[in-house]
Formats: sequence, C-alpha cells, structure tokens
Amino acid sequence: MEKKLRVAIVGYGNIGKYSLQAIETAPDMELAGVVRRASSMNKAMPKELTGVPVVTSIKELGHVDVAILATPTRSVPEQAKEILALGINTVDSYDIHGALVDLRRDLNEVAQKHNSVAIISAGWDPGTDSMIRSIFEFMAPKGLSYTNFGPGMSMGHSVAAKSIEGVRDALSMTIPLGTSVHRRMVYVELEEGADFKAVEEAILKDDYFNKDESHVIAVPKVSDLVDMGHGVLMERKGVSGSSHNQILKFEMRINNPALTAQVLIASARATFKQKPGAYTMIEVPIIDYIYGDRETLIRQLV
Amino acid sequence: MEKKLRVAIVGYGNIGKYSLQAIETAPDMELAGVVRRASSMNKAMPKELTGVPVVTSIKELGHVDVAILATPTRSVPEQAKEILALGINTVDSYDIHGALVDLRRDLNEVAQKHNSVAIISAGWDPGTDSMIRSIFEFMAPKGLSYTNFGPGMSMGHSVAAKSIEGVRDALSMTIPLGTSVHRRMVYVELEEGADFKAVEEAILKDDYFNKDESHVIAVPKVSDLVDMGHGVLMERKGVSGSSHNQILKFEMRINNPALTAQVLIASARATFKQKPGAYTMIEVPIIDYIYGDRETLIRQLV
Repeated sequence: MEKKLRVAIVGYGNIGKYSLQAIETAPDMELAGVVRRASSMNKAMPKELTGVPVVTSIKELGHVDVAILATPTRSVPEQAKEILALGINTVDSYDIHGALVDLRRDLNEVAQKHNSVAIISAGWDPGTDSMIRSIFEFMAPKGLSYTNFGPGMSMGHSVAAKSIEGVRDALSMTIPLGTSVHRRMVYVELEEGADFKAVEEAILKDDYFNKDESHVIAVPKVSDLVDMGHGVLMERKGVSGSSHNQILKFEMRINNPALTAQVLIASARATFKQKPGAYTMIEVPIIDYIYGDRETLIRQLV
Repeated sequence: MEKKLRVAIVGYGNIGKYSLQAIETAPDMELAGVVRRASSMNKAMPKELTGVPVVTSIKELGHVDVAILATPTRSVPEQAKEILALGINTVDSYDIHGALVDLRRDLNEVAQKHNSVAIISAGWDPGTDSMIRSIFEFMAPKGLSYTNFGPGMSMGHSVAAKSIEGVRDALSMTIPLGTSVHRRMVYVELEEGADFKAVEEAILKDDYFNKDESHVIAVPKVSDLVDMGHGVLMERKGVSGSSHNQILKFEMRINNPALTAQVLIASARATFKQKPGAYTMIEVPIIDYIYGDRETLIRQLV
C-alpha cells in the first residue's frame, strides 16, 4: 500500500465543500485539514467538518503534500506563492484568462526555487475545456472553434447584478445562442420599495450586461432558483491537411462545483509527477491526472 | 527562422497520401521523401510524387528527423525498431489494442538505447479518442463510457468479407446503435456466377460478423460506394466526487485518413519535445502536439 497524499483545502465555499467529497472518493488521498479565514471561524462549523482539523494557517496542519486553493480567484496569486514557498504543491482554478500567463511565470519562479509544483487554472474553463480545445486545434489546425456556455449560473454576473442599488439578491443565467453568443437572464429579488424599472435600466447599462442580449426579471425569492448545473458545447469546424469540413464537438451537462473540485483533485495528483515549476493543464500528460498503474491505464484507456 | 523538421513517409497508401498533404500545410516541416516497397516501384508513380525522392530504404533519403509509419499495422513493430535504431524518431497508428502495451515496451528499449523517440498508436482510435476518453475518466472517475463508431467503412471487416469465396469486392459499413453496439452493413460485388445466398451465409458465419447484427447486400459496383467519411460518438455518464449524472459527450464527423494523417503529423512534432523512449498519446503533454510559441498558445487556448 502506497502512502496516501495529504491534501489541505484552503477556503471553504462551494468548491471547498465539493473538494472534500472528491478527496473522500480518491483512493490515493487523505484530508490533512481545512484552512479558513479567521473571520469564518466564529460561524457555525459545517456538519461535514466534524473531526476535521480546521485552522487559519496551513502551517498548523503538520505535514501537507498539496493544497487545493478553493479561494476567490483574485487571492490565488498571493496564496499560491506563500504555500509553494513552504515546499507544498498547489492547484487552483484561477480563471482570469488574460492574466494566467503572468501567474504561471510568477509561480514557476517560486516553485522552482522551493522544489514544489503548481498546476494553475485547473477547473473546466479554463481547465478541461482548454485541454479539449487544444486537442481539436491539432486535429484540424485551420478553422474556427466556438465555446458555448450554459445554461448555467454565472457567478461574476450574479455578483455584478447584486451590487446594483435596490437589489437584495440576484442570479444571472448564461444562455447559449450558438457561435459563442450568449444571452443573460438576470433574476432579481428587489429590496422593499425599490423601483423595478430603475433596477432594470441600471443592470442593462452595466458593463457586465451591455454587450450581450440581457433580460431582467423580478422574482420573489432568488434562492429558490439556485441550481448548480451547468453546461458547455464546444464546436470546431476545420481542416485536416487539405480535407475540409472536419466537424468536432464536445458537450457536457454537469454539476459545476463538483466538476471543478474533481478536476482540482486530479490535478493535485498530477503535481507529483512533474518537475518543480508551474504548469497549465495542457502542459501535463493526461495520464498523470488519473489514479492507477501506468500500463494498466494504457491497456484500458488507449 | 527555425530549421524545418525533415519528415519521411514510410508506405504510400491512403494514410501516406494524406500525410503528404498534412506535411505540406505544417509550417515547421518539410518532406524528406517517401519510402515504398520494391514491388510498388514498378507501378505508375502517383502525380503528386513528381519531384519527391521515392526510395526503398529510408537510409537513401539523407538526413531524416522523423518517420511517419503509414504501413499496415502488423508491419509497424519491425519497421519502427529498425528506424528508431538509426536514431530517427517514429510515429505510427498501430491499432491492435491488446498488443500496444507490449509494442510500447519493445520500442521504449530500442529508442532509449539509440536516443530516439516513438509515439505509438497515434490516430483517432487509438489516438485522440483515447485522449478524450482519459480526460473524461478523471472528470468523472466512476461511471460508464461508451464509444460508438460510424457511420463509416471498417477496413478490417471489408477485407474479411472480400476474402469470402464468390466475392469480387466488398465494403463493410459500421453503423452505431448506441451503448457501443454496432450493426455491420456489408455491400458485396459478386463474381460471375456466384450464389448470393451462399456468400451471405458465409459472411454471417464469419468471426468478424457473427457477434454483431449484420446484413449482406449485393451491389453492382462496390467502388461507387467508397466514402472516406467516418464518425464517433463517445459518451460518459459518471460521478464527480459524490455528484452523480455528470454527462460528457464527444462527437466527430471526419474524413478518416485525413484525420489520422493530421494526428500522425502532430505526433511527429511532439516527438522532439520528449525524452528518448516510447509513448502513447495520453503520456505526452497536449501542448507538445501544437505548432507555435508556448506562451502564445497558452494565452490562446487555455
């Protein structure tokens, strides 16, 4: 029996909770503990954390092999650097597409210096979608790819709508219209006495919504609408050699945080098969993400 | 300007022809020449080979960086070993699933000894299907995957039908019925005076056909039916962490030899980024298959 990897979860929102479930089902991992902000420590402890070490610094957890950064994306760069500098591997689902090359460079330097490994942007987009998008690219190097998201909740858009005056709670659904064009369906719960027309106008003018077809709908209770399901349809029509009209499609319907957490856990496993440094998911051999004996996996999957 | 990779095509059937087209469109490659059997050298030279060195041994081609093995699958092991021993990288689309782990071991030994690299079973199944199947596996580690092939021609089944007495030419189409169950539609061109009933019975009893629902149909001319189109629908329904009913699908409609050739060419490129040894496609980072600057690709694709 091999020694199990000791995994810490840093941050305990949705992704943290689902990461706990994914670690429990991984044959090669055990939970070292959960790291939360000091401000969360005063709140009631979630039932599933009974008996789990919950601390405010990863240093309090004893030996940790790898940390799952399940914190807001903007806090990832700083936290990853701190943890990598302790010689602990990290995985995150950093999703600011325009900045991830810089994050990779920064973490690469820290990781190489401290003999640790980071896999960044490990979720489903960026993440497994990026892997499949890249495979499509070399299968048909010329052509067009479209990624269509949804139907599913967009966290960024929901937060933007919630920040509008007069809105108590909001949920923005992303609806795919094809060729990477999306509609936004924004469900709002109004504060007492708020004017729907004013709220609607403010949302439609907001930078998050004014580029897409957006609709604002008042509902009595936003929390009744929450469904963690999401989806993707990725399509490429392209050319292999000089043969046109090669049609490639990937589609999924998934529980969003459950998939993100599962990909983070697979990436945590893969960190131990890389040389010190920072990687995106397309830079790591696929087999490294999977639990099992190498030749057995090749026999089953190739 | 980087020096272009000099690529040899070994074997000049369908895959060889389409490999030529794929090399012509690859910005980082140039054709070193084509290696054919001595018996093919007496036949009329295909038009597109005008001005191309056509030889019977790869040693006659001067410097070669990598060889595309576009020969029948059974001849791959021996040819790959010979070429790897010359310090030349190889790629093949060896498709005997049960034997590829052994091939990988054998070629690994030769390649390590002679400082060369082999990527084996580089086509679409085994090949890119294997990559996507493996990604699905770590996205939802518990569950069932199904690979449904077609509609498209099966070479193996066509050859089997052609070998039946009374059959001049044959074409076996693979029709997907879902959950990896397939129907075989066998189109036969009979020899003068052959008895259709006898031919039908012989085909349906053959080991290639007696496990699937198979239908035999007489046609005047099999060559009029040839269409290189093929397809796949791969489906997985599984569990991420403890969230069930995660639905993943990959579907493609493609020109079969054009895709195989394009995947071989991408794999040829990837051989130069691996350490000496033999690999299946799931053991090579996806980014290595794609032409371009690393950070630019990450920016575009992740």
